[in-house]
Amino acid sequence: MSNVRIGVIGAGNMGADHVTTLHRHVSGAEVTLVADVDKERAALVAGFVPGARATDDAYALIADPDVDAVVIASHDTTHADLCVAALRAAKPVLCEKPLAPTLDECVRVVREERQVGGGLISLGFMRRFDPAYVELKSAVGAGSCGAPLLVHCTSRGVSSAPGCTDELSVTGSAIHEFDTVPWLLDSPVTEVSWHAGRSTSAMAGLHDPQLMLLRTADGTLTTVEVFLNAGYGYDIRCEVAGEHGTLALTNPARLVSDSARARLTGYPADWRPRFADAYRLELQAWTDAVAAGQPSPLADAYDGLVASAVAEAVIASMKDGGRTVPVQVPEV
Amino acid sequence: MSNVRIGVIGAGNMGADHVTTLHRHVSGAEVTLVADVDKERAALVAGFVPGARATDDAYALIADPDVDAVVIASHDTTHADLCVAALRAAKPVLCEKPLAPTLDECVRVVREERQVGGGLISLGFMRRFDPAYVELKSAVGAGSCGAPLLVHCTSRGVSSAPGCTDELSVTGSAIHEFDTVPWLLDSPVTEVSWHAGRSTSAMAGLHDPQLMLLRTADGTLTTVEVFLNAGYGYDIRCEVAGEHGTLALTNPARLVSDSARARLTGYPADWRPRFADAYRLELQAWTDAVAAGQPSPLADAYDGLVASAVAEAVIASMKDGGRTVPVQVPEV
Amino acid sequence: MSNVRIGVIGAGNMGADHVTTLHRHVSGAEVTLVADVDKERAALVAGFVPGARATDDAYALIADPDVDAVVIASHDTTHADLCVAALRAAKPVLCEKPLAPTLDECVRVVREERQVGGGLISLGFMRRFDPAYVELKSAVGAGSCGAPLLVHCTSRGVSSAPGCTDELSVTGSAIHEFDTVPWLLDSPVTEVSWHAGRSTSAMAGLHDPQLMLLRTADGTLTTVEVFLNAGYGYDIRCEVAGEHGTLALTNPARLVSDSARARLTGYPADWRPRFADAYRLELQAWTDAVAAGQPSPLADAYDGLVASAVAEAVIASMKDGGRTVPVQVPEV
Amino acid sequence: MSNVRIGVIGAGNMGADHVTTLHRHVSGAEVTLVADVDKERAALVAGFVPGARATDDAYALIADPDVDAVVIASHDTTHADLCVAALRAAKPVLCEKPLAPTLDECVRVVREERQVGGGLISLGFMRRFDPAYVELKSAVGAGSCGAPLLVHCTSRGVSSAPGCTDELSVTGSAIHEFDTVPWLLDSPVTEVSWHAGRSTSAMAGLHDPQLMLLRTADGTLTTVEVFLNAGYGYDIRCEVAGEHGTLALTNPARLVSDSARARLTGYPADWRPRFADAYRLELQAWTDAVAAGQPSPLADAYDGLVASAVAEAVIASMKDGGRTVPVQVPEV
Repeated sequence: MSNVRIGVIGAGNMGADHVTTLHRHVSGAEVTLVADVDKERAALVAGFVPGARATDDAYALIADPDVDAVVIASHDTTHADLCVAALRAAKPVLCEKPLAPTLDECVRVVREERQVGGGLISLGFMRRFDPAYVELKSAVGAGSCGAPLLVHCTSRGVSSAPGCTDELSVTGSAIHEFDTVPWLLDSPVTEVSWHAGRSTSAMAGLHDPQLMLLRTADGTLTTVEVFLNAGYGYDIRCEVAGEHGTLALTNPARLVSDSARARLTGYPADWRPRFADAYRLELQAWTDAVAAGQPSPLADAYDGLVASAVAEAVIASMKDGGRTVPVQVPEV
Repeated sequence: MSNVRIGVIGAGNMGADHVTTLHRHVSGAEVTLVADVDKERAALVAGFVPGARATDDAYALIADPDVDAVVIASHDTTHADLCVAALRAAKPVLCEKPLAPTLDECVRVVREERQVGGGLISLGFMRRFDPAYVELKSAVGAGSCGAPLLVHCTSRGVSSAPGCTDELSVTGSAIHEFDTVPWLLDSPVTEVSWHAGRSTSAMAGLHDPQLMLLRTADGTLTTVEVFLNAGYGYDIRCEVAGEHGTLALTNPARLVSDSARARLTGYPADWRPRFADAYRLELQAWTDAVAAGQPSPLADAYDGLVASAVAEAVIASMKDGGRTVPVQVPEV
Repeated sequence: MSNVRIGVIGAGNMGADHVTTLHRHVSGAEVTLVADVDKERAALVAGFVPGARATDDAYALIADPDVDAVVIASHDTTHADLCVAALRAAKPVLCEKPLAPTLDECVRVVREERQVGGGLISLGFMRRFDPAYVELKSAVGAGSCGAPLLVHCTSRGVSSAPGCTDELSVTGSAIHEFDTVPWLLDSPVTEVSWHAGRSTSAMAGLHDPQLMLLRTADGTLTTVEVFLNAGYGYDIRCEVAGEHGTLALTNPARLVSDSARARLTGYPADWRPRFADAYRLELQAWTDAVAAGQPSPLADAYDGLVASAVAEAVIASMKDGGRTVPVQVPEV
Repeated sequence: MSNVRIGVIGAGNMGADHVTTLHRHVSGAEVTLVADVDKERAALVAGFVPGARATDDAYALIADPDVDAVVIASHDTTHADLCVAALRAAKPVLCEKPLAPTLDECVRVVREERQVGGGLISLGFMRRFDPAYVELKSAVGAGSCGAPLLVHCTSRGVSSAPGCTDELSVTGSAIHEFDTVPWLLDSPVTEVSWHAGRSTSAMAGLHDPQLMLLRTADGTLTTVEVFLNAGYGYDIRCEVAGEHGTLALTNPARLVSDSARARLTGYPADWRPRFADAYRLELQAWTDAVAAGQPSPLADAYDGLVASAVAEAVIASMKDGGRTVPVQVPEV
């Protein structure tokens, strides 16, 4: 069986990681082309893979006959146009989240996809492939904790990126939870509210931590804490409390050590070690589906639209004193 | 040094536990009299202590010359009148929480105490003596996690008492957090909101779990989950997330076992094993203070009034769709 | 009921701790006299308790009419003579471990006690009162892990005392396990071997860590690691692996914190925080038994003799290349 | 770059797992041929991979022009002959442990390999690729715990295979530790002793658990517990205690749940979930080395010989009352 030939758009950290993972750890994938507006950067990353070429023209990559499928890991603002171009070229796409920065653009992509028959766009909500989240969803679905009543999500990082804003905390970080929670519960988010208290002094002007309450259609209440400048480490938690018990992710550290009056387990500095397996398995599942001509098991464009609609409602609450705001998903 | 002679009012579970703890584990304490409206019950519990007498008249107990100090563990509705009687008899009191079921009665007790000079009433917020909470407060105060930004409190039990209501979940259970959080942070609760989602089917008509948000004067946001019918066990958690790290209570189980494809630690069925030490140390501290004629290090009547004011605000939010409600502590 | 009037011999760390615990945390106990060869030290420690007196004459303390019962916490070499004196005065004794530094002296004390009818001497193997060990024994006895097959004991400290030797590691530290293991399993130790590998550079000339294998009459094999200069903290572990599962002590830390890329729980610097409750409950149980004229539930003089016999066999193995050595308990 | 075409000998559990892993999760690998004495079984497993063929002739597989490299996962007794055949065909081999059941056969394979120039045989000590063991070795090497002084290894399973013997516990299970420990410490095992106490009633005639002591050339003492019928789960532990602290593997469970008075994390029923990543990364590393014509980073034939020499010494101790036995690695 011949390999799926993949073009990767965007040679920043995320794109470079995808190139490396596809090349070194994904069966049946072959990176043939890398595009970046910075052509040197594209060449550098293409250099990871013997035989891969580089370009500064993402549209040429999409059109290239050596590219069977496209990974989009370029700037958020380019996602919608590139997705549309790939759709028109009838090539499968794995687009990093978000689908687009605005709801209107998300709608445009979803509509465009429906016109060509659907199923071409996959969205990089990689937690759906994280073995721990997969086990959690499976256990929840098997009724291990009874009907879910409360979910507590915590998303902490060492420090926020320069230029981070309250809105970007929502659209860039909390958006993972906006996809994860309804996926876990199999129930869409229907209303939200946004709250913040005392903020870290690490970044002036930023509300950090933020606390969001989500209500899903099944009635379950979810708390989402996003704390970008938590300082101590990258730490993702999720607990589902149900009628008969709870289920939660463990701290995934592999070593415990005793030293200087303490027993300790480490935290990673960022998301890479935590979600390396999730990205690998997501890329494998996508490659397998493309190779087999089967529907992708990843999140799709509509999931991306829905998550953005939740984000929009959260931001509306943020701007209106923490009021409870209904989630409105546009008709497509 | 002669022992402090203690009369215990109320021979239910809580009163009987206090009698046993005072008799068997508190240095310098001697239970001399036990009162209960059910005189047989009073006699049974008095029988735990060689030489102790029983009565069905709580006021006679307060007046008894063999009673130096009074523990009130009778029904909540009796607390205020008994406290006032003890104040008039100038005898130190350890009153179980709440000080009284209504804010008006709390005000009456606090005012009455001020008239006699103050300092006679201690309130049984025993978590202030729990070694884990004490360590937590000490570490927070020492700046171990930096300035607190978020606090997450979880209070879960196996099942709610018969007749439990949404209001009783607040005044009977969450009230511990209303005292603990400002004590931990050294900052009073200024506003609150109340939320609930899907409820357990364990008790019809009850909102359980409940989720409350508290804001303290220092700006810190606190989440309080009270889940009375969590089923799996009695489980009290508290995490303080600060500028530089977090601090949290551990699961206090003493054993871990491996069995049937699982590693497990146990949960108690109720609060007794979890807070046995807290009650012992609280009673010891109170006895020591009474013996020495020193001010009690326990929570006082005003702390009880303040906690009840928070509870009243939470209930106002509950009845008004989860609106944010300011805490109003009556002038006394 | 009048208090038990207790004389404490030895005003070093251990004696001072006992005085404080008896005075502040034990119901029904009253420290009336403190003896130490350093009279100033005795006076200092007696000063913790209003009304207590000091002496530099341990024998005068034993004879004092204000002393109902005696705690011996003086140098190990004094234990046997003081025990005998107390026996002759017919006063109950709580003697710190070891009963005596040599097996011959242990035999002398046990014989002397039998002559006066037995039951007067209790030995300070306080782990028998540690709530975690008590739970462990209870769970083992209840068959929670099936028949015990292997036991792993670990005893680590920050640093060894000056002048520590290989033999003192055994008679001073490992001796706790020599009592704990047969108590846990309800089966005596029948043979032992001693092993050591690479040693810490913390103390020249000391074999540290040491590893001992114990076999009990029920066939169970036990590993005992004693590592006095482990550096990182005071850390006591015990795991029982049985036919159907395991049971082990947890790390008793009360707080967990996140900081600087790590999640951590603390270790104490020495045995005091770890076994404070064990000492308190041991002293309470002993005081209660003395007050009631009942048999003491503590380890007795014969248990002390047996533990010393195990230690002697271990030291014989140490001096003979790790050979397996049978435990020989002298006839008394 | 063209894929490495791999033939897998042995279509039992292990072989089938390797076929699946190579096909679905290893980049650059292509399974072309599967051999098993049971040809139907071979066909079944070959059927996992589109285009793969089946045979009942392992030697034909080795000779097949569509096979670039060979995985040997057939019965232990076939390993030596198959390795030699592959060596003569100059094809790289990944042989499951043990290299051979007897030391003489191991010697024969190593000598044969040296004649053809070396480097063709890799041995399936997959723990060297387990991310947790890799982190542990890296941390030990970085001096995180100071010089290692003691190592404690525990290897427990649910139940032993039918026909298991004391010797097979050593050559089939403990042998992993015989490779892991010197790899971790970078120091060979020089002497050993074997011990057993009370055995499980799960399998008559088997000494289970077994306890082994290993001494490495650096002086470090290691305890190895192998308990095949531990019942509760598959549980692999390793702790290194050093001069300044300890390092240990964590329990790798991904979920924690609260249920029925307990907090629990699961154990797998066998080694597959625990070491799935180790096998995948081992196969990837081997495939990459074969593809690049580079030396394999896996354990080699000589490592297999050495581990078998340790096993032989342990069995000698077993048969001689637990005597300490030096490890003698044959000259090759």
